[in-house]
This record gives sequence, C-alpha cells and structure tokens, in this order.
Amino acid sequence: MSGEDAPAPQQKPEEQTKQETKANEEPKAESKPEPQPAAEAAAAPADAPAAAEKAPEEEAFTFRSLVLSGHGGYDKVKLQVKKGKPALKSGEVMVRVKACGLNFSDLLGRQGLYERLPSPPVTPGMECSGVIEAVGEEVTDRKVGDRVMVYYRNGLWQEVVVVPASSTLQMPEGMSFEEGAALLVNYITAYIVLFDYGNLRPNQSVLIHMAAGGVGIAATQLCKTVNDVTVFGTASASKHEVITQVGVTHPIDYRTRDYVEEVRKISPKGVDIVLDPLGGSDTHKGYNLLKPMGKLVTYGAANVLTGPKKNLFAMAKTWYNHFSVNVQSLMNSNKAVCGYHLGYLDGDMEILWQVANKLLDLYRQGKIKPRLDSTWHFEQVGDAMRKMQERNNIGKVILLPEPKKEEPKKEEPKKEEPKKEEKKDKKEDKKEKKEEKKEEKKKEEPKKEEN
Amino acid sequence: MSGEDAPAPQQKPEEQTKQETKANEEPKAESKPEPQPAAEAAAAPADAPAAAEKAPEEEAFTFRSLVLSGHGGYDKVKLQVKKGKPALKSGEVMVRVKACGLNFSDLLGRQGLYERLPSPPVTPGMECSGVIEAVGEEVTDRKVGDRVMVYYRNGLWQEVVVVPASSTLQMPEGMSFEEGAALLVNYITAYIVLFDYGNLRPNQSVLIHMAAGGVGIAATQLCKTVNDVTVFGTASASKHEVITQVGVTHPIDYRTRDYVEEVRKISPKGVDIVLDPLGGSDTHKGYNLLKPMGKLVTYGAANVLTGPKKNLFAMAKTWYNHFSVNVQSLMNSNKAVCGYHLGYLDGDMEILWQVANKLLDLYRQGKIKPRLDSTWHFEQVGDAMRKMQERNNIGKVILLPEPKKEEPKKEEPKKEEPKKEEKKDKKEDKKEKKEEKKEEKKKEEPKKEEN
Repeated sequence: MSGEDAPAPQQKPEEQTKQETKANEEPKAESKPEPQPAAEAAAAPADAPAAAEKAPEEEAFTFRSLVLSGHGGYDKVKLQVKKGKPALKSGEVMVRVKACGLNFSDLLGRQGLYERLPSPPVTPGMECSGVIEAVGEEVTDRKVGDRVMVYYRNGLWQEVVVVPASSTLQMPEGMSFEEGAALLVNYITAYIVLFDYGNLRPNQSVLIHMAAGGVGIAATQLCKTVNDVTVFGTASASKHEVITQVGVTHPIDYRTRDYVEEVRKISPKGVDIVLDPLGGSDTHKGYNLLKPMGKLVTYGAANVLTGPKKNLFAMAKTWYNHFSVNVQSLMNSNKAVCGYHLGYLDGDMEILWQVANKLLDLYRQGKIKPRLDSTWHFEQVGDAMRKMQERNNIGKVILLPEPKKEEPKKEEPKKEEPKKEEKKDKKEDKKEKKEEKKEEKKKEEPKKEEN
Repeated sequence: MSGEDAPAPQQKPEEQTKQETKANEEPKAESKPEPQPAAEAAAAPADAPAAAEKAPEEEAFTFRSLVLSGHGGYDKVKLQVKKGKPALKSGEVMVRVKACGLNFSDLLGRQGLYERLPSPPVTPGMECSGVIEAVGEEVTDRKVGDRVMVYYRNGLWQEVVVVPASSTLQMPEGMSFEEGAALLVNYITAYIVLFDYGNLRPNQSVLIHMAAGGVGIAATQLCKTVNDVTVFGTASASKHEVITQVGVTHPIDYRTRDYVEEVRKISPKGVDIVLDPLGGSDTHKGYNLLKPMGKLVTYGAANVLTGPKKNLFAMAKTWYNHFSVNVQSLMNSNKAVCGYHLGYLDGDMEILWQVANKLLDLYRQGKIKPRLDSTWHFEQVGDAMRKMQERNNIGKVILLPEPKKEEPKKEEPKKEEPKKEEKKDKKEDKKEKKEEKKEEKKKEEPKKEEN
C-alpha cells in the first residue's frame, strides 16, 4: 500500500519450475535488473531449502508453490514445483495445505504496492487451511492430523507450508477447508474495524463499501449480530440481491448513484460508522458522512487498483486526495478517524487470536459463515486475481493447491494424501474424508451463494 | 478553544449591578470598544427581561447572576443582581439554583478562547443543580419541587435559571446539590472518551492527564469499573496520595519527570488509551505512546491556559504543535485519533442523557462519586477560577449562588427559600433540608477528600 516502486526481477534460476500458469495477459516479461532477495524473503516459511543439505528421501519430496516472479500483471504469479522437504524448527509445524484465501493485499502485492510483501521472487499468501503433517520440537498444542487455519505474513500459497505453531488455529467441527481459508483475514478485519474501533451498538448505522467483497460480507454478517443496525452497502446493481440477503439494509449502486446523496436521503444526519477500504476522495466523503460521535475506519486504498498493472494516475489521484485531519477539526465535529492494517498487526498475534476465537464462537452459533465466491486451482491464479480485481466476486475467492484435472471435474481422486493420514490418525482421517467430499461438491465455479 | 481575539467590552450600563466581585488581580479595566452583544447572548436563558413588560410583583423578583463583562483576567466575571421574574415559555422550567459547576471551558471562555460562549456581556456556566420552582406549558415530566441537574450551553451561573425541561435530569436520592453540579460535564466527558471512543476493556491501560482534575478523577473512577485496568495518571506530587486512593495505579509527577519515559519504564509497549485534554506537543507524545490498536482521545487544549489572561505565546506554541495525522500513518501504526467537544454535542441531548442515565446507575451502585475540591460563593468566583486555573484543585470546584455571610461560616441561615418550598411540596422540602445540612458541612474550603 505504499507508492514505492519496487524492482520486478526475473524468477531465480535455482528454483525448480515445472509448470507455469498460462500467461493470462501481458505475457511479455519485464526486463528489470535482478536484485538480491530481501532478508524477509529468506525467512519466509517453506522456502525451498538447498538440496545439498537434504537426505535423498527428503529430496524426493516435492510440492507446488505459487511464486510472484516480479511486480506487474496477472501473469507475474507463476506455479512452480519445489523440491526437498522443508526443515522443521522447534515450535514449528508443517501443514498440508487444502485451500488458500485470496486477499486484496495480494493484488496490491503483485503490483508492488504492498510494502509488507518482500521483494520478488516470493510466495504470496496470508491465509490458508489444511492438515498438520509434522510437528517440530516443543510443539505441545498441535498434533499430526489436526485441521488448522493458518495466518502468516506471506508464503502460504503452497501445497506444503512450515509455520510457527502459534500461527495456526484449530478449525471447528463442520467447517470446510474452503471456509477455513476464507475466515481469518476478512472476518478479523471486519470484527476489529466494526467492534474494536467502531464500537458498534444497537440502533446504529454503518456504511460498508464493497459490500459484496470478502470483508464487506463479513462486516454485514457481523452487523446482524447486533440489534437494529442499519447497513448501507455499496456494490454494483447485479450484486444487490445477494448482499440484501446477507443483511444489507440499503444497497447502493455506486456506479450509477452518488452514494453520499443516497445515504443522506435515508439518513439526513449521516451514519455512525464508515468502513473505508477505498482511500483517496472516498475517505473525505466518509468523514463528512459521519454523525457526531461517528467513527471512520480506514483500512485500505483499493482506489489505487484500477487495472492489472500499477496505474500511476490512479495512485497519484488517490495520494493527492489522501485524507489528513487535525485534532481541532476532530474535536469540533466530535469524530474519530481510525487506521487498521492487519499486516502491521502480525507482531501481536495475541490480539488476532483473541478476535479469531470470538469469531469461531459466532461461527459455531451459526451467526457468521464465510460466503465463497469461487474456487480456483493454483494454475488458475491469474483468472482468480482478475475476478477479484475487476470486482466480479461476491464473497471469497479461494485457491486450491491440488492440480486441475483434465477429466470431468467431479471425479477428482485425492487418494495419496488420505492414505498417509490413515496411518497416523484414523479418527482424524474420517473427518478428512467428509471434508473432501464437501470440497469436491464445491469445485464448480463461480460458486453459488452459500449463505 | 479557538485562537480568535475577541474584543473585551465593558459591562453594559442597563444591567443592574449591586455587587461586584473584589478585583482579585489586574484590577485595571481594559478600555476596548464596546461591541453589540451577539445574537446568542440574547438567547441565553434567564436574561433579565425588560422591566416594562413585567407586572409589579414580578418586578420585585430579583436574583443573583454572574456576568462575564469582557474577556480577560479573573476580575472580568462580575456579580450582578437582576430584576424581574424571567418569563417561562412552553416546555421550559424555572430552577432555583443551589450549586454550579466550574469547568475548564469557563476558564477558556473568560479569556475569549471558547468559541461556544457568546460575546460578553454573557452569563457563563454549563451545569448546575437545583429545585424546580415553576414549569411552563406542556412540561409533563417535571414538577415544582423536583431536584434536578441541568446541562445547558451557557447561562447557568445564576440564582434562578429558565431552561428547556429537556435540559434537566432528575437527581437521584441521596445526591447532594454539590454532587449534582459536579457530575454531568466531567463524567459525561470521561464516560464518552473512555467507553465510546476508547472502548476500554479488561486488562487494558490508560494514560490520564490532569488526573486530579474533575475529568481526571471521573475517568479514574470509571476505569475502576472495568477489571484489571492499569491507570497512569499525571499530577503534581502533592496530589499523588489522593489520586492513588481514587484508583490511579501509577501516579506520575509531570513537573519533575518525563511522563513518556515513566510510562515506557513500566509498560515498554505503551498504553491502549491516552486521554488528552492538553493539546499541542502532548498530543504528539500521546499518539506515540499508543500500542497497536490504541486510541488517542483529545478533548481540550489546556496547554493554552498558562495564566489569568490570554497568553499569545502559549497559544502560538500549542497551535504550532497542533497535531495532524494522515490515514496512511494511522493505518500503518494501527491507531485511532478521536476528537470530543461536549459544547458541540449539545444539539444531541439524546446522546448525553443516555450516557447520564448510565452514570446515574453507576452512582446508585456506589461505583462513582464526584469528588468535591471546594465550594465558593458567587462573590468568590475569581478565587475559584484561580484555584482551578493554577491547577491547585483535586476534583470539582463548585460555585454557590447564595450570598457569603459575614458571620462564622458554620452558622448559615438559609430560611427564606426552604419556607417557600414548604408551601409547595412538604415531602420535597424534607429532602431539601437534609441536603442543606449536608451542604452546610461542606462550606469549609479547601474541601477534604470525599471518596
């Protein structure tokens, strides 16, 4: 989300590339100088270890991995097959990944606009779900076979990841892997912006931008857990039926209407909370729409994303309109401006897991449920990104590590891995198989409504 | 709280002045041009009506009133006796005032730094307590004899005030008039900044500046209603014993120590909430002291007040250091900046009374209790203001409309008014007398600790 112009290097030669995503568009590779990978990149989980350090049987271990080869369009994310079993340090676990979440920051990262993602080549991905396949020393609260959700700063778009056990959370009974990959980033964000900063209470009103997006749907569902909350939600007209079903009281087609006017027509005094993932002039508008004691929570700059590649004009416009406020203005209008960036909270996992545990309670009570827009295999990551970037999704876009089959989609044999599980934990395995059946049903894309 | 340089006119000649406060200091009257009183001043409650409009018995009605004659030092607030019974419009009530609260905004207003106070001549005062003496048409929820607290934008430092019934709140059993005049402004402020903006929760930490002031003590008491809250409170060393008893965990003498260092020593990551009534460079310091997800709530600019008269240097310094923040910085640090100004909330009495009713519940439960620093008769308003402005108070400074007697203080006959009450409502009167006895005990100044 910074405007810095990071270099876009070629893929590193020592990485084992067997497959590549089809070049969805802009197939011409950029020819910028190749930098040293950043220190953070080296520390990313499950980076392919040097083959020389590994025993022969470990070298036979391969896993699919998405790698951002350089900043740019959809074709910059390449599918690679990495060799060698990642080493497990004390406190770490190895997770066989079943599903990954696609987030807005991944789109920004691809364009070099997300400063929390190390320089390419790097594996993106902040959230996934899967099954624990090995545990390192001193891991006492996780065991092989556990179904977990994972949140980590990057590196999770792989078939196998190694992360600190403290970056994982047990999945509740009945939650599919796709839901598990859809919950953490969107719902933690929605929860914190609505309840920690927004302090949402009964009878209040909330403006939710991009109400059909992952955070938008999460926020709408969370609003419905509080009595008599009025939700204004912006989305293009074709999504209104769905967001209304999810809980938006007043859907507004921001493409054909001035949303400020529409809100004022219904609520002349404005709203109590504005959730602003847009930035630029929309932050100003949101601030002006606040009632006394209103809170603007800004947590993104989606306005900088207008096409597959970095758009300098959109960036300049967004930054030119960047919102600043002084305390005198805040005082005289009785307003609050709050900033949220999950990427900068990852040093405070305690905050995140506290929220996540509340979310799991709400999930178990049936009060929230991630809405899955569509699932895509790693090979299709470019199409998946395009769908989200062009705002054609309603709910979460999910990536699946498993290869796309040429056969009819309903027959997807996933036998190898369950067998492995069987040896370790038969009970867990039964759950596994159930989940897989569920998943198989979900392969159709785009997904129909889940809620 | 604005820096505008309002003119300081002489007192208007048509006002009936019988008594004046002794010129506490700077006795030389300023000789600036005399402006027309602002439109708002004319709308202030209980302004003396023109005698010609009144019947003879109404003209015999007189009441003591404090009037700000011009902007400047402590001597600018004059005691006057106004003639003529104020007219009651529909929806209004007349209150016989028993005690008035002195607030920081009154100090700013005297210097011409509080833009919500109309131009002089004007009666200051935002809060008082007393007994309803008459009700206008269409007032159904108040009756003669009711003991009430009053919040109004100005004009309450009088023996008799006429205000909308909706600006009054019934006082609970057992609350003294002095407490009734000490609760609304300080506790509503503290409640909103801590709970609405701050969203205070168990195990969090709060930095309270001016912890021995009215809001400071209110905020500390409110912090204690939440489990395991750590309170850092700044005050000069002589006040530490008292604020510790009220509930401050770590008192900090800001006059001899760097409070930022002191907080960091105990809590290296900083605090969750900073309550900032100071402005200027302290707002920056407070912002930097916030933990991730921390909230800075700014609700004043006490730093501009350094002496009896407007200090241009202090103002310039405070304004030069005025805090501005852009949303990118807020996002990357996961922080919130919130502004609160009670004076601009008076169009939303619903918000205020909702909070006030919660406060009365806490009062009844014994969880909060205004701490009275001292009581002063209207004649002593200059001394009262000086005590607060020089930060020598611990808790609330109260003004009493009744005249100061020359006799020994313990013998204060207050017979006239109770008799009046007796005729109207004997039951109420008994309460009254009890209250008065309590009040008589409280006449010593400075008051000893109440909590």
